[in-house]
Amino acid sequence: MASSQEQQQSESPREPNDLPLVIYHCLPQFKLNLKSWLEARFRLLDPSNPCWDTHAPSARVLLCVGPTPVNSQTLDQFPSLECVVGSSAGVNHIDLAECRRRGVSVTNAGDAFSEDVADCAVALLIDVLRRISAADRYVRAGLWPVKGDYPLGSKVGGKRVGIVGLGSIGSMIAKRLEAFGCSIAYNSRKKKPYVSFPYYANVHDLATNSDILIICCALTDETHHIVNKDIMTTLGKEGVIINVGRGGLIDEKELVQCLVRGDIGGAGLDVYENEPNVPRELFALDNVVLSPHKAVATPESFAALQEVVIANLEAFFSNKPLQSQMELE
Amino acid sequence: MASSQEQQQSESPREPNDLPLVIYHCLPQFKLNLKSWLEARFRLLDPSNPCWDTHAPSARVLLCVGPTPVNSQTLDQFPSLECVVGSSAGVNHIDLAECRRRGVSVTNAGDAFSEDVADCAVALLIDVLRRISAADRYVRAGLWPVKGDYPLGSKVGGKRVGIVGLGSIGSMIAKRLEAFGCSIAYNSRKKKPYVSFPYYANVHDLATNSDILIICCALTDETHHIVNKDIMTTLGKEGVIINVGRGGLIDEKELVQCLVRGDIGGAGLDVYENEPNVPRELFALDNVVLSPHKAVATPESFAALQEVVIANLEAFFSNKPLQSQMELE
Repeated sequence: MASSQEQQQSESPREPNDLPLVIYHCLPQFKLNLKSWLEARFRLLDPSNPCWDTHAPSARVLLCVGPTPVNSQTLDQFPSLECVVGSSAGVNHIDLAECRRRGVSVTNAGDAFSEDVADCAVALLIDVLRRISAADRYVRAGLWPVKGDYPLGSKVGGKRVGIVGLGSIGSMIAKRLEAFGCSIAYNSRKKKPYVSFPYYANVHDLATNSDILIICCALTDETHHIVNKDIMTTLGKEGVIINVGRGGLIDEKELVQCLVRGDIGGAGLDVYENEPNVPRELFALDNVVLSPHKAVATPESFAALQEVVIANLEAFFSNKPLQSQMELE
Repeated sequence: MASSQEQQQSESPREPNDLPLVIYHCLPQFKLNLKSWLEARFRLLDPSNPCWDTHAPSARVLLCVGPTPVNSQTLDQFPSLECVVGSSAGVNHIDLAECRRRGVSVTNAGDAFSEDVADCAVALLIDVLRRISAADRYVRAGLWPVKGDYPLGSKVGGKRVGIVGLGSIGSMIAKRLEAFGCSIAYNSRKKKPYVSFPYYANVHDLATNSDILIICCALTDETHHIVNKDIMTTLGKEGVIINVGRGGLIDEKELVQCLVRGDIGGAGLDVYENEPNVPRELFALDNVVLSPHKAVATPESFAALQEVVIANLEAFFSNKPLQSQMELE
């Protein structure tokens, strides 16, 4: 058995210079603080550090906090870079093509946020159908005793839900909505093996066969404005769109027009094209529910994120497989 | 094959006087109009009818529309009454003891509204935990670009949900919340056979072992204020209460105090003690979601209600078992 002195020595924190070097890449205005719980295990380097110029060129891994952009100019600063560890589910702020070209691997938040995003998508859907937020405003405005019953909503069960992007989040949304008696179909780049839901090779055909579209795919050049005016017209006057992916997946200008004109029935939105700016025309509509890009935000999911980030960093430094590595096609 | 004239005759509506007589019992201010789709099959009699005094005493069945009270005085008017066909899930407006004493059977809305109420309970729960309505207000007030991110909510999965009243609605709530990863326990008058969720014989023990209480039992003398100050204190500062049963199940004055003082974490309410009046103290709170007793209200559930009411009336007049007869203990 080791003496208490030896124990103390072996448990004392290593000198910061002994710890593996990680570039801490974070927009100053971005509040998510991953630093405090990483500093015990890694030597985090950011441009405010006096050693930045000396050590940054030798850094092998960069931790990208939140949606901080990683583009060619970013990558040019770190010629030794081998890995970008992301901390978000979507990584459209990281130039994946450029990373692939340079042989830099990329990880994302894995499943850390998936349940929270799925929960939020379902909440937005029921809220739009059953008018929960709008009825809450009605009650708070004191209108119930004055104007009487609030207008009827629409039942969740029996609705045909089309999920655009059946990854980890989409699958969790499907599981939840099946418990409500919805029928599920999906679109994704490829038909998924072992998935029994009907598959549609394009969003137009999915919209034709759906009452509701839930958008939860990655934002790429191919999926930009994947929900355009044609899709909304196809979905129709009773149709509802839920977006928990990225704002750029929907042609927002057209969405606003369709909602204002009543060409679609309603929308539940967690993301927007120009966040934190939300089109003001939506503020007056009772058939939309507006969430400020908070689908991922619970303390529990940040704890899960912490685990994923640490697991990826430790895997990298011990030459083991990364836990949530992205496919860079 | 019948001639077209014969066909026409057999399809022509019967004279109203040939149709089975049903008392149409409805408060004038209550808007739910069941009349139009019943008149083809039954002779509906209300006090505005010139034949009221002649025919009411011989009526064998009374259709109770919405929460219109049925008490001794009501029953005294109809000495031939054998059955009260209700059109709501809860029947606390019908004096069940008096009906039993007089040998009058009572039906309710059966499962017609159960799915909608369960959906609403789940929506209120996610809304309180993830602050959907509050965040929607935040966005609509234009605060996102000015004040930044909205505060974190709390994850749905992993929460211990205690259901008070595991009938048709409670069971559907349980099924939905299991898909979100919640663990379920329940309280009811008796332990249910074939139900594997943990059972607690009283609400206090259920509250001790729950993060969230969902109230969906019937309102009776025994369940009045079943959620009192003690239960709320036991649930604790992070605890959330959802009520989709009846306002009288909760001591509303204490609930308001507990919410204002932060003694419980939040509440999602569809029902109140003095509807349509909602305690104004709640209007300023962001940890409550207020729904104007609309958990049951979708066109689909009214269609289902129509079926249940007609099924009960037809069963009554053809001496078959009623479809949704209440146990009058």
